[in-house]
Amino acid sequence: MTASEVQRGSSTLDAAHPNTAQTTAYLPGRRLRPSAKVLPEHARNHNRALVLQTLYGAGAMSRADVSRETGLTRVTVSDLVAELIADGLVVERGQREGVRPGKPAMLIDIDREAHQIIGLDLSDYSDFHGAVMNLDGEILERIDVALEGATGEPAVAKVLALTERLLQASTRPVLGIGIASPGVVDLAGIVHSAPNLGWHDLELQRRVADASGCPVIVSNDANAAVLAEHGFGHAESDLMLVRIGHGVGAGLLLGGIAIYGSRFAAGEIGHVTVGTDGGPLCACGKTACLEAWVAIPRLEAEIQAIRADATDDDTAALRIDQLLRDAGERLGIALAPVVGALDLSQIVLSGPEELLDGALAQATVETLRNRTMAEFHGDLTLRLTTLGQDIVLRGAAVMVLSGQLGVS
Amino acid sequence: MTASEVQRGSSTLDAAHPNTAQTTAYLPGRRLRPSAKVLPEHARNHNRALVLQTLYGAGAMSRADVSRETGLTRVTVSDLVAELIADGLVVERGQREGVRPGKPAMLIDIDREAHQIIGLDLSDYSDFHGAVMNLDGEILERIDVALEGATGEPAVAKVLALTERLLQASTRPVLGIGIASPGVVDLAGIVHSAPNLGWHDLELQRRVADASGCPVIVSNDANAAVLAEHGFGHAESDLMLVRIGHGVGAGLLLGGIAIYGSRFAAGEIGHVTVGTDGGPLCACGKTACLEAWVAIPRLEAEIQAIRADATDDDTAALRIDQLLRDAGERLGIALAPVVGALDLSQIVLSGPEELLDGALAQATVETLRNRTMAEFHGDLTLRLTTLGQDIVLRGAAVMVLSGQLGVS
Repeated sequence: MTASEVQRGSSTLDAAHPNTAQTTAYLPGRRLRPSAKVLPEHARNHNRALVLQTLYGAGAMSRADVSRETGLTRVTVSDLVAELIADGLVVERGQREGVRPGKPAMLIDIDREAHQIIGLDLSDYSDFHGAVMNLDGEILERIDVALEGATGEPAVAKVLALTERLLQASTRPVLGIGIASPGVVDLAGIVHSAPNLGWHDLELQRRVADASGCPVIVSNDANAAVLAEHGFGHAESDLMLVRIGHGVGAGLLLGGIAIYGSRFAAGEIGHVTVGTDGGPLCACGKTACLEAWVAIPRLEAEIQAIRADATDDDTAALRIDQLLRDAGERLGIALAPVVGALDLSQIVLSGPEELLDGALAQATVETLRNRTMAEFHGDLTLRLTTLGQDIVLRGAAVMVLSGQLGVS
Repeated sequence: MTASEVQRGSSTLDAAHPNTAQTTAYLPGRRLRPSAKVLPEHARNHNRALVLQTLYGAGAMSRADVSRETGLTRVTVSDLVAELIADGLVVERGQREGVRPGKPAMLIDIDREAHQIIGLDLSDYSDFHGAVMNLDGEILERIDVALEGATGEPAVAKVLALTERLLQASTRPVLGIGIASPGVVDLAGIVHSAPNLGWHDLELQRRVADASGCPVIVSNDANAAVLAEHGFGHAESDLMLVRIGHGVGAGLLLGGIAIYGSRFAAGEIGHVTVGTDGGPLCACGKTACLEAWVAIPRLEAEIQAIRADATDDDTAALRIDQLLRDAGERLGIALAPVVGALDLSQIVLSGPEELLDGALAQATVETLRNRTMAEFHGDLTLRLTTLGQDIVLRGAAVMVLSGQLGVS
């Protein structure tokens, strides 16, 4: 094993556990202490993850290609690939067709058919969504369960039952289960607070792992969504993804690193007050919270009222357009300081397209440009996710791929 | 060299060059590519930095202690220490006094007297401030130069002349020169835009390095300040430092990593619009920018006007208190979305204490708590820096310590 191999692997560790990786960062505070000793088996795991990442990203290649791409020695690559083949994660795909002289190289690839991933999206207030996915994050099977107002333990029971049904629906060994929950979730998979589900300090990761016997990763739904947008949606590595539904929450990636915050509450912008001219009453008791302006149930109720009230369709359309414009403007007012402070160049919205796309999105980006420095943010882009309503489920797949293939 | 040694060193690299380190992060985007090959001499430099950081943080210890603390083998430590002694960075401090049997251990430490650091703070609109500092960031010698309205090349000439005078004032070999400039500065030390100094795309790092023959690091003044607060001011690793002077700018650390933004403009919050009820005209042509509310010249002018206008001292005091409260409230309105989005628990202000401490800071923190979720931000702290007006100079020292000792 060469020096470079371990170093290369370490970036994998940092990627998958940004919070832990970052705790040792920055010189030269007197509190700085070297991190815990890294044992040889950790280095091996990092190198294994590096091989998997390389194959995952590039597809079938020879062992020599992997060696060249990763900087690992051929001996190390052969050794790791043998282990990955034995584990059923990598498969030989036959010899390379080509014109090169000499013995043709055997191509290897991730065995994308050998395992499946289970994802759960608990962020919809009416249904829990579940899916069986392949290793490319493609959805093979869906199961939805009506929440029927369940909270607390009954809601946990629905999660466990849905997980069991998804396991039964899977047709390959399950690599892991990714769960995207609303609320504040820590890195140990404890849901500290998800008011809509009545969950407080719920050990969701442990509960599902105990019941299923599978590796389980739990994260906040907006954090899952931003991982999906980055992994599958061709997003930049500096990105804010804003989910607008029953509530409003954001997921943040900075330099490709997910931001969790000092209390795992990063992105919880729904109850930030917007503007200084009053606003609608929020369910939380305050007025002019971002959620009170832009949450989907509020917009739907207002649109219904406009339609019931308006004398003709044209008038209704104009008033609905203005409603969506106002909501977009409020979203822009709330986000402008964040865009300025983080120098963001890209914002992605996730939620019902028929409400977000058009007047709302347009007003948001115009407001953002008007309320920040044009010099920097004149080229700011704002778009809807291309991943649609499946963004959270696919984010759950990214969580599993990262946790199970990225780092053991 | 063991596997663990290289791994340990790599966290140093990530710390000092967060932007470059982060670009390879996150699985499993198809665009992910392994980072450039790390050569053995890099690993050696990382291990060297690890030894220096350990000694810098903990002070005199034996080679065996260093080995234990770092996880590096004794042979590697002895080898690196010999090199560091030859370079004049580490010195033997005599044998340990104590009761342990056997041969007493020789203590080694950073030779804190062997080198000095030069720092320049270009962020004050009236003067350039310079200092010669020791390796603990203590200021040994100060030189200030009146700016006298200089901009463009004449301002560069003042920087070069000040640097030359500081080099003459230094009494030890200079480890490096740290320069904190206003405006947008990239990692190569190019000042992309510093309007007050009339600088655009100025290669400040190269200019000063060519003139001085010393290693030079250039950064934005607020970014320098947040490093100082983290390194010397006992701040947490999640921190926003807001500098209020002629303009308003912020430095951000998240998980101990400095945030620079996609265009190196992170923290440029001075021209974010505050509130939705109008406000003072800003020099930039917009209204209600954060700077228009809280910049020091504006507050000083208003206070002068109140004093000239008020019939008695009590009335004047009340009106000044209200002015500062209003400014603090506006600062809180601007920062609340950032606090919510990043889940910050600590904000530090830097600027004239007589204006910031008291009514202004109090109104800021009250506004922040009122406009974010009490559940998370009820315990938010806001305080003035303990480093006073020297925070930027000391940040320049941190930049040099990081660049020269942290990573070669």
